[in-house]
Amino acid sequence: MTTKAAELHAWAYLSRVVEPPCPELTALVDEVGPVEAADCIRRGTVDGPLLSRSEARRDIDRAAEDLAVLARLGGRLIVRGSAELSGIAFTSFADVPARIPHPPLVLWALGPEHLSDLAARSCALVGTRASTGYGEYVAADLATGLVEREVAVVSGGAYGIDGAAHRAALAADGSTVAVLAGGVDVPYPAGHSALLHRIATHGLVVTEYPPGLRPARHRFLTRNRLVAALGGATVVVEAGLRSGAANTAAWAEALGRPLCAVPGPVTSSASAGCHVLVRNGAHLVTRADEIVELMGRMGELAAEPAHQCSPLDGLTEQELLVYDALPARGARSVEEVAVSAGLPPTQVLGPLAALELAGLVKSQEGRWKIATR
Amino acid sequence: MTTKAAELHAWAYLSRVVEPPCPELTALVDEVGPVEAADCIRRGTVDGPLLSRSEARRDIDRAAEDLAVLARLGGRLIVRGSAELSGIAFTSFADVPARIPHPPLVLWALGPEHLSDLAARSCALVGTRASTGYGEYVAADLATGLVEREVAVVSGGAYGIDGAAHRAALAADGSTVAVLAGGVDVPYPAGHSALLHRIATHGLVVTEYPPGLRPARHRFLTRNRLVAALGGATVVVEAGLRSGAANTAAWAEALGRPLCAVPGPVTSSASAGCHVLVRNGAHLVTRADEIVELMGRMGELAAEPAHQCSPLDGLTEQELLVYDALPARGARSVEEVAVSAGLPPTQVLGPLAALELAGLVKSQEGRWKIATR
Repeated sequence: MTTKAAELHAWAYLSRVVEPPCPELTALVDEVGPVEAADCIRRGTVDGPLLSRSEARRDIDRAAEDLAVLARLGGRLIVRGSAELSGIAFTSFADVPARIPHPPLVLWALGPEHLSDLAARSCALVGTRASTGYGEYVAADLATGLVEREVAVVSGGAYGIDGAAHRAALAADGSTVAVLAGGVDVPYPAGHSALLHRIATHGLVVTEYPPGLRPARHRFLTRNRLVAALGGATVVVEAGLRSGAANTAAWAEALGRPLCAVPGPVTSSASAGCHVLVRNGAHLVTRADEIVELMGRMGELAAEPAHQCSPLDGLTEQELLVYDALPARGARSVEEVAVSAGLPPTQVLGPLAALELAGLVKSQEGRWKIATR
Repeated sequence: MTTKAAELHAWAYLSRVVEPPCPELTALVDEVGPVEAADCIRRGTVDGPLLSRSEARRDIDRAAEDLAVLARLGGRLIVRGSAELSGIAFTSFADVPARIPHPPLVLWALGPEHLSDLAARSCALVGTRASTGYGEYVAADLATGLVEREVAVVSGGAYGIDGAAHRAALAADGSTVAVLAGGVDVPYPAGHSALLHRIATHGLVVTEYPPGLRPARHRFLTRNRLVAALGGATVVVEAGLRSGAANTAAWAEALGRPLCAVPGPVTSSASAGCHVLVRNGAHLVTRADEIVELMGRMGELAAEPAHQCSPLDGLTEQELLVYDALPARGARSVEEVAVSAGLPPTQVLGPLAALELAGLVKSQEGRWKIATR
C-alpha cells in the first residue's frame, strides 16, 4: 500500500470509528497524522475520553469497503488539511476567530464542484419541511436570484424549502450543495433520490458520515453546522417556532455568518420562526440582491482576516494538487509527492518551487514538507 | 364678552389665520397670550415671518361661526397650555427632549374621550389605503388586541388600514381616535362619514384645522405628525414603497416613539414598505402583546423623565379645570377663575389651595397665576 493509500484508508477508518465531530480525535490526528492516529485507536493506546468514544467501534474497519463504495459512486474523500477543506470553506466572512468549533475531519463527497470555489460565494437557504406554497415560491425565487449572481446554494436536501432551493438552483444551471446527515449512498429522504443524484451530477453532495450510515436525529443537528459553515450567509425562508432551521440559524450566528430570515404573513405559522429570528436580530431579506449585498458588506469588513486565513487562495489547480500531496506532518521526496498527486515527477517541481516562493512549503535535505506558519 | 370667551375667540381666530403648524405664532402666543397675539396679527404689528404668513388671512375672522359649528356638533377646543394637551399627549415615552417640534396650537375635538387619558396608553395603527384582505385582517386583529389591553387605537380615518383599525376598536368597545386633515365638519373620506360619526360619538375626532377647511395633500402630511404624537408607539400594518404611512413612521422616529411594522408576504407590494422599515431598524411585530410589551419597556425606560414632564398627572378633574382656567401669563381673581372654570367660587378655593401646595400655582396680592417652573 502506498503512503497515500494508507493515509486514505486511515482517514476512512477514522471517519467511522467515532461519531463526528470529535475534537479529541482531531487533536490526535493533528499531532501524529492519520495513519498513526488510526493505529493508536486500533490498539487502544489513546487517552481516556477518546478511548471511551472509540471503544465501541475500534475493531470495525470497513475502510476498504467504504472507499470502494465511494469510488463506485465516483466520489472522493475531502480530508482535514487539504486545500479544498482547510481555511477557505470554514472561514467566516465576519470577524470571528479563524478556527470554528469542531470542523469536520473528513467529508465524503460526490460531484464536480470544488468546495473551496463554492465557499467564497455561497449562501445557505434553509427552512421547514412543512413549507407552504408561498415559502416554496420564495425559496425558488431566492435560489434563482442567487445563482444568477454566481452564488452557490447550500442546503440540506430535505423536503420543503431545502428541496425547492436545490431544484431552482439546478434549473437555473447554478451551483448547489446538499449536505447529508447520513452516508452518500443513503439518499435521504428516499423521495429525493433523483434530486440528490442530480445534485451529485451537477453540483456537490457532502457528508461527514461514512457510506451506509443512516441519518439520525442528532446527525441532522450536527449536519446543520456544516450547512451554516458552507454558506457565506444563512437565509431561513420559512420556519415554524420549533423548526430545525432555528438550529442552522444558531450555527450561522456561532460562526459569525450573517443570518437572514424571510418574512411572511403573520397569520402563517410557517413564518413564525422567521419573525422570531428577525425580532432577535436577524436581517430581514426579501430579494436575492439584498442577500448578496449583505454578503458583500460582510466580505469587505472581513477582507483582511479572510485573506490571512486563506493562504491557498491564489494557487493553481496543479499547485493545490501538489500541496495536498504533502503530509500534514513529515516530509516527502519529489517521487513520493508525484505518486500522491498523481502527476509525473517533471510536473511536480514547478509547483513545488512556486509553493516554496509563496512560503507554503519548504525543502529539507531533498525532501519537501508543509511550512509551519 | 368674558375673558374666557374672548380667549376662546382668539384661539379660534389664530387657528385659521396661519396654516399650522407655525412656530412663530406659537412663540408669540406663549409670550403675550392668545388675545393679545390675535390683536397684534389683526393690526399687522408682528415680525416679518409671521406677518407674511398671516397676511392673506388676517382680515378673515370666522371665529364666532367656527365656534358655533363646533358647539352645534357638541365639540370643544383643546388649546395650547391646557391640561388635556400640554405635556401628557406630546411627551414621548422615550428619552427625547420634552418639547417636540411644532406642537399644535389648538385641536378642534369631538367626542367623549380625554386626550390626556389616551396619550398614556395609545398606539397609532396606520397603513396604506390600498390595503389587502390580509392587511385589513391584521389591522383589525391588532386593534382588537390593543383595546383588549386598554390601549387606545389612534389612526387617520382613511380607507384601508386606518378604517379597519378604527372599526375593530369600536367593535371591541375600545377607545379610538381619528386625527383629521380637515375641519371636524368635513368628514373625509366621504365614504367614512358614518364611521367618523361613530368615532366622534364613542371615541375622539381631532384636527388642527378649523371647521370648513378641506383636507389637502400637505395637510395629510402635517396631520401625520399628530397621529404619531398621539400614539405611544406607531405600527405600520401595510404600506407600499411610496405610502404615506412612511411619513407617519418618520414622525414617530423624530418623536422618539417606538416604530413597529408588520411583515407580510415578500410577494405583496402592500407589505414592501413595512419590510423596508424593518430593514431600517423598525421593530417587527406580529401580535398586540408584542406592541404592548414594547410600549411597556419604553415606558419603564422613560419613567422618570415622563413624570418630570407631566406635573399635572395626579390632579383631580376639578383641579385640572381650575388650573386650565388660569391664563398662561398674568393673574386672575378667584371670581374670574370661577367664571372661566364654570364653577361656583366656593368650589375654586379648595383646588387652588391644592394646586398651590403642589407648586403649580401661586397667589399674588389676592390674585392667582400659574407658577413658572
